[in-house]
Amino acid sequence: MDEFEFIKNIKKRFSLRAIGDDCAVIPQNAETDLVITTDLLIEEVDFRLEWTTPGLIGHKALAVSLSDIAAMGAEPKWAMISVGVTETLWNSKFLDEFFDGWHDLAAIFEVELIGGDTSRSPDRLVIDSIVAGELPRGTAVMRSGAKPGDGVYVSGPLGGAAAGLKILKEGGKLKDSASDEQQALVMKQLRPLPQIRLASRLRKAGLASAMIDLSDGLSSDLAHLCSASSVGAIVNANDLPFEGELMNLAGSVEGMLDLTLNGGEDFELLFTANDEKISDAGMNDVFRIGEITANTGVIELNRNGQTELLPPAGFKHF
Amino acid sequence: MDEFEFIKNIKKRFSLRAIGDDCAVIPQNAETDLVITTDLLIEEVDFRLEWTTPGLIGHKALAVSLSDIAAMGAEPKWAMISVGVTETLWNSKFLDEFFDGWHDLAAIFEVELIGGDTSRSPDRLVIDSIVAGELPRGTAVMRSGAKPGDGVYVSGPLGGAAAGLKILKEGGKLKDSASDEQQALVMKQLRPLPQIRLASRLRKAGLASAMIDLSDGLSSDLAHLCSASSVGAIVNANDLPFEGELMNLAGSVEGMLDLTLNGGEDFELLFTANDEKISDAGMNDVFRIGEITANTGVIELNRNGQTELLPPAGFKHF
Repeated sequence: MDEFEFIKNIKKRFSLRAIGDDCAVIPQNAETDLVITTDLLIEEVDFRLEWTTPGLIGHKALAVSLSDIAAMGAEPKWAMISVGVTETLWNSKFLDEFFDGWHDLAAIFEVELIGGDTSRSPDRLVIDSIVAGELPRGTAVMRSGAKPGDGVYVSGPLGGAAAGLKILKEGGKLKDSASDEQQALVMKQLRPLPQIRLASRLRKAGLASAMIDLSDGLSSDLAHLCSASSVGAIVNANDLPFEGELMNLAGSVEGMLDLTLNGGEDFELLFTANDEKISDAGMNDVFRIGEITANTGVIELNRNGQTELLPPAGFKHF
Repeated sequence: MDEFEFIKNIKKRFSLRAIGDDCAVIPQNAETDLVITTDLLIEEVDFRLEWTTPGLIGHKALAVSLSDIAAMGAEPKWAMISVGVTETLWNSKFLDEFFDGWHDLAAIFEVELIGGDTSRSPDRLVIDSIVAGELPRGTAVMRSGAKPGDGVYVSGPLGGAAAGLKILKEGGKLKDSASDEQQALVMKQLRPLPQIRLASRLRKAGLASAMIDLSDGLSSDLAHLCSASSVGAIVNANDLPFEGELMNLAGSVEGMLDLTLNGGEDFELLFTANDEKISDAGMNDVFRIGEITANTGVIELNRNGQTELLPPAGFKHF
């Protein structure tokens, strides 16, 4: 059983209706819905202290939750943060710098810190990030609205964060990376930027029929979206946008495709939309990578006219 | 610097108005405020797997947050839960039983699970519990409303949870404790019951001028309340309610007083109120333990007419 099956089981056992999208949606008043998300980040699983800085960890803790808010098309409003720190970190400048990084990103989107919890943790840093946003009643963009014939779009180049992780794993450091290009990929991994503004534009213009943020990786997140919408999809390999440096780093087309299709944590948006509407709206900063099909549950990859199955191969905890 | 000073510093640095009570309070609509809290629980710090059961951990994770909701006088509505589990626990029945325990308590107060996160944790179970509640606009009972002359009350006997922890630490087990009385103390530690209904009654009747839940221990939590209210307090040792079995377990009056004054996790309510109003309302199920004074920051203990300072000596993470 992987974690996605686990969540499905829990949902069924306790008849939970609200669970399963990037955020939960709660009616707040006659005009407004509240959307809310929580993300647990654990040292050695989600980050390594020696690869990053306290400020970048603070930034990323907020960014991953903001990206969930973006995936609903909402405007972020307030946040809470729970931090479990070791005695060593407690007695250092860690938390000061962590909150500086957190706060710098929060300030951009006017997110107010309203609460949290601080705990001792015996040997690893643990962070739970909680962010809430708002949008007009009934306008949240769910994963479940994709229709056959819709175009499949992404908001930016893919694979950069996974490439950055590869550089770090191979011993590259944040500060003395071989080149500016490699440095840029490492920053894609350590300092993701949530697509709040684009998402809000898509929602206000009623353009996206379904949306999810790319956290696990395109192949997995597209599978989540298709499953929620009871549709299939076909992705055109030649239309995938990727970071220029990716080809050099991957060393082969297969390696590059793997990073692009299965690499997680780009925190770009993946959405479906009517192609004409996107074109009429003059959305030139998004990339059409494929199309939704009626083949429920079947995700395909078109490589130069040859079609193969695209199995979900993104990040899994278990 | 302890964690209370740290929170004060963070508050000051980022001009955070909302932080510092049991829950954050957010206006939801013209009639209703939302209150929300988060509690981080970490294995070896907040619980030990060998002392409890998965179901009781699920129960307690929800109970501690419900107790924060109670401390505002609110009605709990929905919750999220983030869980980081080891591979071993993932491959066992742990999470099933954990969610059963969580859900059984949630059902009592009709709390809906609306979201959460599941992550791998390398070597320790980590839980972040998030609960939100509602109450009529502007009626949240804060820590800051205590006035000199108010009576100081608690909602139930103190020291039981700390005594239960002592039994567990000394090798007592949940199932084969020496006596039913000891078993009851252990359950006070492992299965706290949040005072949602009493709190809601106090708020509706406008009885409590200030309120906090007893999580760190009476001496510390009273200091938090007095600090927020800019008042002092005097506690009468002879009026402290305690579990009958406590005297046997502690072995001395000093030991018993220590458990009662400084033992944490009873999750009873500590509140201040006008004595006449409490008596007029026929509130016979609460205990008057002292009085609020104008001696800002001075918390005293009256033992048979002799007054001494009562330093905050409850639980501290750092």
